[in-house]
Amino acid sequence: MRVGLGQFDATVGDLAGNANKIRDIYAQALRAEVDLLAFPELAICGYPPEDLLFKKHFLKDNRLAVEKIAADCPEITIIVGFADNFQGDTYNSAAVLQNGKITKIYRKCLLPNFSVFDEQRYFRAGNEPAVIKVKNLNIALTICFDIWDIKRLSNFLKDVGKIHIIANISASPFHVGKIKKREEIISQCAKEFNCAVSYCNLVGGQDELVFDGRSMFADSTGKIITKARAFDEDLLIADVVISGDSAVQVKSMQPPPEVPEDMLDEIYQALILGTKDYTLKNGFKKVMLGVSGGIDSAVTAAIAVDAIGAENVVCVTMPSRFNSPETIKDAKQLAKNLDTELLTIPIETILTQYHKELKTVPGWDDKGIAYENLQARIRGIILMSLSNQFGSLVLTTGNKSETSVGYATLYGDTAGGFAVIKDVPKTIIYKLAEHINKIKGREIIPADVITRPPSAELKPNQKDTDSLPDYDLLDTILKGYVEEDKSARQLIESGLPKDVVYSVIRMVDRNEYKRRLCPPGIKITPKAFGKDRRLPITNRYGA
Amino acid sequence: MRVGLGQFDATVGDLAGNANKIRDIYAQALRAEVDLLAFPELAICGYPPEDLLFKKHFLKDNRLAVEKIAADCPEITIIVGFADNFQGDTYNSAAVLQNGKITKIYRKCLLPNFSVFDEQRYFRAGNEPAVIKVKNLNIALTICFDIWDIKRLSNFLKDVGKIHIIANISASPFHVGKIKKREEIISQCAKEFNCAVSYCNLVGGQDELVFDGRSMFADSTGKIITKARAFDEDLLIADVVISGDSAVQVKSMQPPPEVPEDMLDEIYQALILGTKDYTLKNGFKKVMLGVSGGIDSAVTAAIAVDAIGAENVVCVTMPSRFNSPETIKDAKQLAKNLDTELLTIPIETILTQYHKELKTVPGWDDKGIAYENLQARIRGIILMSLSNQFGSLVLTTGNKSETSVGYATLYGDTAGGFAVIKDVPKTIIYKLAEHINKIKGREIIPADVITRPPSAELKPNQKDTDSLPDYDLLDTILKGYVEEDKSARQLIESGLPKDVVYSVIRMVDRNEYKRRLCPPGIKITPKAFGKDRRLPITNRYGA
Repeated sequence: MRVGLGQFDATVGDLAGNANKIRDIYAQALRAEVDLLAFPELAICGYPPEDLLFKKHFLKDNRLAVEKIAADCPEITIIVGFADNFQGDTYNSAAVLQNGKITKIYRKCLLPNFSVFDEQRYFRAGNEPAVIKVKNLNIALTICFDIWDIKRLSNFLKDVGKIHIIANISASPFHVGKIKKREEIISQCAKEFNCAVSYCNLVGGQDELVFDGRSMFADSTGKIITKARAFDEDLLIADVVISGDSAVQVKSMQPPPEVPEDMLDEIYQALILGTKDYTLKNGFKKVMLGVSGGIDSAVTAAIAVDAIGAENVVCVTMPSRFNSPETIKDAKQLAKNLDTELLTIPIETILTQYHKELKTVPGWDDKGIAYENLQARIRGIILMSLSNQFGSLVLTTGNKSETSVGYATLYGDTAGGFAVIKDVPKTIIYKLAEHINKIKGREIIPADVITRPPSAELKPNQKDTDSLPDYDLLDTILKGYVEEDKSARQLIESGLPKDVVYSVIRMVDRNEYKRRLCPPGIKITPKAFGKDRRLPITNRYGA
Repeated sequence: MRVGLGQFDATVGDLAGNANKIRDIYAQALRAEVDLLAFPELAICGYPPEDLLFKKHFLKDNRLAVEKIAADCPEITIIVGFADNFQGDTYNSAAVLQNGKITKIYRKCLLPNFSVFDEQRYFRAGNEPAVIKVKNLNIALTICFDIWDIKRLSNFLKDVGKIHIIANISASPFHVGKIKKREEIISQCAKEFNCAVSYCNLVGGQDELVFDGRSMFADSTGKIITKARAFDEDLLIADVVISGDSAVQVKSMQPPPEVPEDMLDEIYQALILGTKDYTLKNGFKKVMLGVSGGIDSAVTAAIAVDAIGAENVVCVTMPSRFNSPETIKDAKQLAKNLDTELLTIPIETILTQYHKELKTVPGWDDKGIAYENLQARIRGIILMSLSNQFGSLVLTTGNKSETSVGYATLYGDTAGGFAVIKDVPKTIIYKLAEHINKIKGREIIPADVITRPPSAELKPNQKDTDSLPDYDLLDTILKGYVEEDKSARQLIESGLPKDVVYSVIRMVDRNEYKRRLCPPGIKITPKAFGKDRRLPITNRYGA
């Protein structure tokens, strides 16, 4: 039997657009003589639809869209994810479409309600297996997390008879290294049931999340036989056949796709797709960002260019008297290397004018942090004003390290619409810069930008290390505290310096309010800020 | 038997501070000869602790704090809420403290995972009743939502024998009218079990939420006998006695407290407490806000003064050439009426300077929305700069109507730390203004401010109604669309004008990104923005 996995980039809420993509893939699958065609979890409405699921008419429209697809695509058995209202409850469902009709509905049993997931807010859990027969093969339906608890799954499917394929439809978001975990689960699942597994994952960016695709087939020995493209749409086709000794084989129909070569490449591709989809799906054609001559804005600009093209990226440099000739030169060089437009808008006269008005307030001065932040805020306003005038999306350029400790100006450099590298630690930013130069085969990010000690350039001779520990140490502490929920004590016992640990934790905790007011950005680590990490702002616990 | 309900204002994460408050109330209860003393749900750590619950050491510290309280308060039976780790799972628990020890632990069964609640993200559900005996009365323990499904509760408690009191400890957040629902549930519960109900609720502000207290007792006829203060700490004491015919009576020990006189008073008190607690719990002493001479900033200023005192509120007026002499005069009059400091910082010269730099970019002009928004953004920066210099919290002044449709400038008037009236519709703002003048017995908010047609004053002769429908109509549509999840079709069928409905819906949907970047504000309606309403930014569904 020939199975196709229609890994496509759904847009949340775009029922008609998603249905059109499904119809196009169906036509393609028909030409390839596919017998069973699967689409991702909630493919009809995109994932995650969040509180759209509380609208009764949204659920009704989901159902109508599925019925329409069934009628339009009668010649292949289709499995497609949608949100269904059944007897007053909402289910994360998979419809089976055959001969123009919905012939079966499977309802997801295991509803993740951790990390970025809130499925128990919306869905009731299903409790019935669904097995269909196509060309004499028995196919058990599962949705995403259903296969992640193999013991439960064994018990759940124990009475359904011989299974030849476990068909899983997923919307599994990317983070670094997750593909390995996924392959393990799928392999384990195939071995447990001595059957093939077809795994169809979503692809595309949705707000904070990137779905990385990489749909795949495993045979009954647990071997991953073939995989779809990473970070791109694909139709993966394979033949699933029973071999003599009750084993199930998978025969790939396509040459293997290019795979991300390493962790950096994986991150880079995730950032490109996340940026592209956020921009385009929200109706923007162009983006704009401030380039300082520093590494964060340089990497962000390079990502933007790969996401939507150099002709759609505008770099803006906004020098003050604190910017060195070297960083100004590097900003220009970067725009030249990337072949983007560069606007230069000096902020000095505006800064002077603010200071003139503000110094009428007794106690105002131009020596402290308020005056430093004022410069970042002037830049933020300039970008937002240009964005307003020309309709471009402003990208912010803060990395995870500074976002963690609040080394950023609220309503200054955090002002914008999308925070591309928000979840990328500074130590990885350096590696990404080198990666970019390597894959482009020439210097995109000027060498100086990579080697110069980082500075916010908001006062004379400022360096990041005046306020922060070295980034290697900082990132180690942050990984433990932010991503792994370790205590100060655990970090210190692991050999990290006590004073620095406490000071970093204090900074992280005190800046929750600032993070809450930052634009969304792309999750690439196991725990990102945003929906993934929900800390109270008002909070006196710090340990 | 004498029962005390220790309704106090816990701070999230402040385990030591909350324990101190508990000890103080214990001392007071001891003097009043209380036999059983209850504290709210998660009183030890505050509610909601959110992802603090993922820290193992936080759970350990919760347990230690409870054990310490048990040791310090041995002479009364205490029921207190805490987060407990038991056999590797986390439970929303109530500890019973007797004779210096924890003698029993009840685990919450019904975990709300809707609206602002995410309890299934953190907790495993309990499944065992807990009944204790104090002075020959049988007391069944319940936590908050446990009593909201009376059928489940009946079944759950069917084998525990005669119950004289159902003791419920809650952290039930305020919204307008919720007290009525709560009283109904409690009354129904008392009747169902023919027993008294003691209901101890949390009080205080926590980020977006305000807990309104109003702990209470019902007797076995379902009558609410006595209630604690609204929006304030209180120790409510009553005697619970068995009367001959198996009925359970409640005899109040205190005169009834003052109650909010109507819906407006309830809202006003919620806003005051929410503002006060957000400010003080986050370590601010002073607040600062822009006053325009309009009604939103006037009402916000009055709330701030009642929350933390006139001496701690700084009003800032930032006129441009578009501000009329009348509104400038009214802003001054307001500050005078409220007896607050007033700073005047004209923005005209700064605006000119921005325009001068920006017009070097071909296509920039001073005729459109970008130039209008620039003014709001200059004001936002001035406030943030002063906040930075002087350490005050900036309050924003946007109401729910404009927050809904995005009639606000991102990083302009939305820039600040706390959005006091974010959940208050414009039509209610007018009523609040009159309410404030009424309760103060004099004109606080100048009459002109209430009667003048609202304007953003960002271009000549601008009025809100140039861009928006009348607020009465707007608020009706918003209530249906935002709070009740109605469809465009339902709204139109209810008689609302089609064009306006679609245009409002479009504005609401398109401005999700803007709301995501607004500061938190106080929930007063059944559905507020923030944790209560989670819509994707990237979303093509609009119906």
